[in-house]
Amino acid sequence: MFCVFEGVFMSQFLTLTTDFGIVDGYVGAMKGVIYDIAPAIQVVDITHQVPSQDIAAGAFAMCSACRFFPEGTVHIGVVDPGVGSERREIVVETTRFIFVGPDNGLFSPFYETEQIQRIVAIENPDFMRSEVSATFHGRDIFAPVGAHLLQDVLCEVIGQEIVDPVKLDLWSVVERPDGLVGRVVNIDHFGNAVTMISRSQILDAFGDGQVQIVVGENHFEQICHTYTGVETGHALVLYGSLDTLEISINGGSAAKVHGIKRGDEVRVLKL
Amino acid sequence: MFCVFEGVFMSQFLTLTTDFGIVDGYVGAMKGVIYDIAPAIQVVDITHQVPSQDIAAGAFAMCSACRFFPEGTVHIGVVDPGVGSERREIVVETTRFIFVGPDNGLFSPFYETEQIQRIVAIENPDFMRSEVSATFHGRDIFAPVGAHLLQDVLCEVIGQEIVDPVKLDLWSVVERPDGLVGRVVNIDHFGNAVTMISRSQILDAFGDGQVQIVVGENHFEQICHTYTGVETGHALVLYGSLDTLEISINGGSAAKVHGIKRGDEVRVLKL
Amino acid sequence: MFCVFEGVFMSQFLTLTTDFGIVDGYVGAMKGVIYDIAPAIQVVDITHQVPSQDIAAGAFAMCSACRFFPEGTVHIGVVDPGVGSERREIVVETTRFIFVGPDNGLFSPFYETEQIQRIVAIENPDFMRSEVSATFHGRDIFAPVGAHLLQDVLCEVIGQEIVDPVKLDLWSVVERPDGLVGRVVNIDHFGNAVTMISRSQILDAFGDGQVQIVVGENHFEQICHTYTGVETGHALVLYGSLDTLEISINGGSAAKVHGIKRGDEVRVLKL
Repeated sequence: MFCVFEGVFMSQFLTLTTDFGIVDGYVGAMKGVIYDIAPAIQVVDITHQVPSQDIAAGAFAMCSACRFFPEGTVHIGVVDPGVGSERREIVVETTRFIFVGPDNGLFSPFYETEQIQRIVAIENPDFMRSEVSATFHGRDIFAPVGAHLLQDVLCEVIGQEIVDPVKLDLWSVVERPDGLVGRVVNIDHFGNAVTMISRSQILDAFGDGQVQIVVGENHFEQICHTYTGVETGHALVLYGSLDTLEISINGGSAAKVHGIKRGDEVRVLKL
Repeated sequence: MFCVFEGVFMSQFLTLTTDFGIVDGYVGAMKGVIYDIAPAIQVVDITHQVPSQDIAAGAFAMCSACRFFPEGTVHIGVVDPGVGSERREIVVETTRFIFVGPDNGLFSPFYETEQIQRIVAIENPDFMRSEVSATFHGRDIFAPVGAHLLQDVLCEVIGQEIVDPVKLDLWSVVERPDGLVGRVVNIDHFGNAVTMISRSQILDAFGDGQVQIVVGENHFEQICHTYTGVETGHALVLYGSLDTLEISINGGSAAKVHGIKRGDEVRVLKL
Repeated sequence: MFCVFEGVFMSQFLTLTTDFGIVDGYVGAMKGVIYDIAPAIQVVDITHQVPSQDIAAGAFAMCSACRFFPEGTVHIGVVDPGVGSERREIVVETTRFIFVGPDNGLFSPFYETEQIQRIVAIENPDFMRSEVSATFHGRDIFAPVGAHLLQDVLCEVIGQEIVDPVKLDLWSVVERPDGLVGRVVNIDHFGNAVTMISRSQILDAFGDGQVQIVVGENHFEQICHTYTGVETGHALVLYGSLDTLEISINGGSAAKVHGIKRGDEVRVLKL
């Protein structure tokens, strides 16, 4: 599938994003399972410190890192409050990457940013560990499936195609007659409120025209270049490290001062 | 020694489990020493957040992760309150793995679960750093010895065989006329009390017969399949992610509510 | 992937030391960028828990780990309070390593311990990401430059040579007529006060003669071999894990009890 990886000397990568923490042996166990199946790959940690069971936070961590990896990388995400329940396990194949994890919205950002090829439910026990525990699907299902996918196993063999993956509403940016509407997808540890409304979407919609940004009762009439575009303590909007709109306070927390929280609607309108 | 790794394409792995934390450069220094000796291997972190000097916790972290790695993996463990004292440094060779670290009980679980080939005391200075500090044997002894063992150095060359390694009592499961007796080896961060009494040992001892589990004054008359096998707030026994008995509370901490602690005796008796 | 290590080109390593923490996707993003450019290398974390914006602490973490890596390793350091301001980005090429990061003193220890070949300011946009954000030079400048330097790109192509890198005063050890003078460069988490005054400098300056060590109003008349060289609760001087002088208290914190802090002058005088 990824011809670029079929030469003998190319590297292949598998990333891990979980809420398992780094104190116990859980992540080590997953890596052992992966390397036992696919010893020539590189496993790379994104983070294992996703706040416990916070799917949207896990989605944001994946969103901010996974896109930079080489084509063909398998990204495993395990933030999985429903483990052991009826929720499906899925593989999402896009033109650039493969995502493996629970079908609970964890991959929502990529339904917006990547070109989906197919999504399958993980069903074939040949690619799971022989004993699947009720509580540790990261080790028993997602790790071996991810490793096998880097060993030339095709998605089609893993399970049946599905068309209705769970999506968190947070990530879509909608074009309406009066402008663009997105949401705050993450509050970072500085108190910046990050959206998925990108510079290119704003350029497409408004060209060089002036815009205003509305978040609740807050109105902003320019997009600054740096945090120092306003006086200390004042709020501003700028493009952050993902090249998407962020609401910030120079030297403070937009989330605290303006009460902005994850999920809040952000509108970009013509000025 | 591990012929399976001598083919051109096989990778070799070395894992690290320590109580060094991840703030300082200690772990990085160990990795530098290892890669300088054995540049083609993969070093994998199990955890560096073992509670300071807690040998039994380090043993449990290794126990829950090391078994999943490919045959031939070298596992270095450094939880070493006795560094600089008279305690021995050892290499434990089993049919599947090699363990390297202080002789203080850190490898106790593997004396139960792996087939030991030989244990040697580390004595040969050729495989240590040229300057051995009094305080950092992880970098100066265990890292270079582990790396050399992946470079076809034989255990026999490292030092003399020993027959009396230090063992923590915690890990053995004893068969008595009335049933199996083990201990609580770990309280995890959810408050579950984990034992080493495995599903297969119980099947061997009792077949399909009913059993009761006794921990202090607590009696359990069934082994549940999932946490939801009892009402919220009630205690239960089930097989955990290591496929061994765990005492849990659905939605709570067995350790807090029932006062169960590491080292407590757990008995499995015929009902 | 590993075949590349068996021919002419030995493995290549790139280390990362940052204050980005391990909760967000920042470090993962850097690794994605690096592996996308140089897929056959190994990226190794020193630490990402440098106290936020504490350049001297980052310098010490690098100092205690980087030296142990194989020759040719590229060490990226990002503790960068001045990101987005006028501070330069630099590449420091020594006879053994290459350092990449902001020109703010982060590499000060290596100006003392390594043989510098050349230092260049990073100017050539061909080796940066096509979009350079104002806030994340780790991902957009340092990661791609470091990766390209492992792909046979020469320092000379990155930018113009500079001769005046920023140096923190902390790291130099000066020989005066009456002895050696250095500073406390780090207080570790045990409260030990670490200097850069090495065993070999003391041997060169004093031979086998007796010395006294003076720190503020504290005088020490011997260099002990181990922490147990004095009674519990008493202060002592010994060679630490970097083989440099440390002021310690057996079972206590020299920093707390004696008020010793980073930057304090430490003098080694003839007794």
